[in-house]
Amino acid sequence: MKLILDLDTGIDDALALAYALALPQVELIGVGGCFGNVTRDRSVQNNLDLLALFGAPEVPVCPGADHPWGADGYRPGDFKYRVHGENGIGNVLLPAAGGRACETPAARFLVEAARRWGGELAVVATGPLTDLADAIRLDRAAMASVGAISVMGGALTVPGNRTPFAEANICDDPAAAKYVFESGLPVTMVGLDVTLQTKIVGADLARWRQVESPAAAALVGMSEYYYTNESETGEIGGAIHDPLALEAALCPGAFSVLPINLTVETEGPGRGRTIGDPALLGRPEKTTRVCVGVGAAAFVAKFCGAIADWLGRD
Amino acid sequence: MKLILDLDTGIDDALALAYALALPQVELIGVGGCFGNVTRDRSVQNNLDLLALFGAPEVPVCPGADHPWGADGYRPGDFKYRVHGENGIGNVLLPAAGGRACETPAARFLVEAARRWGGELAVVATGPLTDLADAIRLDRAAMASVGAISVMGGALTVPGNRTPFAEANICDDPAAAKYVFESGLPVTMVGLDVTLQTKIVGADLARWRQVESPAAAALVGMSEYYYTNESETGEIGGAIHDPLALEAALCPGAFSVLPINLTVETEGPGRGRTIGDPALLGRPEKTTRVCVGVGAAAFVAKFCGAIADWLGRD
Repeated sequence: MKLILDLDTGIDDALALAYALALPQVELIGVGGCFGNVTRDRSVQNNLDLLALFGAPEVPVCPGADHPWGADGYRPGDFKYRVHGENGIGNVLLPAAGGRACETPAARFLVEAARRWGGELAVVATGPLTDLADAIRLDRAAMASVGAISVMGGALTVPGNRTPFAEANICDDPAAAKYVFESGLPVTMVGLDVTLQTKIVGADLARWRQVESPAAAALVGMSEYYYTNESETGEIGGAIHDPLALEAALCPGAFSVLPINLTVETEGPGRGRTIGDPALLGRPEKTTRVCVGVGAAAFVAKFCGAIADWLGRD
Repeated sequence: MKLILDLDTGIDDALALAYALALPQVELIGVGGCFGNVTRDRSVQNNLDLLALFGAPEVPVCPGADHPWGADGYRPGDFKYRVHGENGIGNVLLPAAGGRACETPAARFLVEAARRWGGELAVVATGPLTDLADAIRLDRAAMASVGAISVMGGALTVPGNRTPFAEANICDDPAAAKYVFESGLPVTMVGLDVTLQTKIVGADLARWRQVESPAAAALVGMSEYYYTNESETGEIGGAIHDPLALEAALCPGAFSVLPINLTVETEGPGRGRTIGDPALLGRPEKTTRVCVGVGAAAFVAKFCGAIADWLGRD
């Protein structure tokens, strides 16, 4: 399956990038870098540096949105620096990649790939849905032909992590998220309902630590930073939100899903809340599949094992 | 199946009472009357009057709670009078029943019936969960032995109807609802997720109108009041919330359900919100079954048909 990742990189974004490269059935044809966990420019640079580190410098990195719909700019909140470190990747220092980002904006890249690959293409967005919304606005028909669209974001059956009602990615651009969910395109939502069930702790990294390579060292360093800083409750363990969104695109059968017509609140105390649209409650066609259950331990083991196997290759 | 209805009567409560009497497989062994749509005393009187009208004056009516946990009293909000009429039953005037309410409080009646009938008993609560919570507090083991507990209340995947976050029954006593959902007892939640899909309009009452009896006239009169006043959006149609909660106790297979460990917010802007407890997200055992899908047209037809058949009997 051909894959585009749109990332706001971010430690768990970096883990999703590694997971994509580790999976033999995935051909990563491009990566977007948008604002969110970090600034857009930091996200792009992290993607370039990580792809070089991971031995895939040929994968194009496209600049995504640098601010939400309806805003003039964007600055990550302090809590994002706490969760992801000053540089977004747990303060792990990587060699600067020699390559540069493409000129093509991420939304345009998504549309061109959708036109070319259609149902062979999967799109996974792990940050604010701005790039995805821009792509649908550019060419809805092309984006409707994509084989799978999976987004990390939202919270339907559990409280949010930014506010009691809203998850961080959706909160970062509620208008774009609303546009995506109301577009009628089939979207799989991988939100806190499931991602808070899939957490890594130190013991999960045992096999990564046995590999002596810069990539392994970086992944261990980022993950250690993450699982000691990600939790809002002081509990040790880092939710691997973004790899799980990739998993939903690849293995939809591994999730129990609730089909629903979703909307997003864009103002008031519920700003950023993902919730069923009551006006469409009676419509038999449901366009969003909200993941509400996952075999959590199995996924964490698969994820860690796939990365370990990949790191251990020559 | 033996059934106890705990009602805050209310038009759709009256419809649930009629539905219970109309179903041959149901033996209605008692009715509670609690605060909610109306005052507790009004609820009790409505239940007595309706049971007499429906030819079942022998069914005991027990007084339930007259105020929420942690409050001194209760007054129904103005919008409840708008939805249900000044007397709770659409301003339809019924002959005052000759009988009187029991002395036994509803919660005590629930516990005694649970001890006696256990798995043969179904309990359906269509108002605030105060009586149910009181019963569980009185004798948790007895209530845990009940065959089915179904409650009309809450909203998990759609906005609330009292606030954007909370449904009216839960909002009327969030602490009691929290106690019920966190009790660990298997509870089926029939909330706005499904009840807003099951609406009656005038055409649904055609067969009821053909019956010339005081019961038929009262049911038509209440329903007409309801479907023109219940909607918050101006749209014609009355959601038959409470009969659907009874249906879930009788025919659980007619619903798609989401198993979850639910909690209730008791303060802040989300006061009265039913939401998954994030602390119990990873627990494989789920104690609440939230109804998220229903064959809506089939249920409305079944409900109206069952009442029509019952009204038409000698």
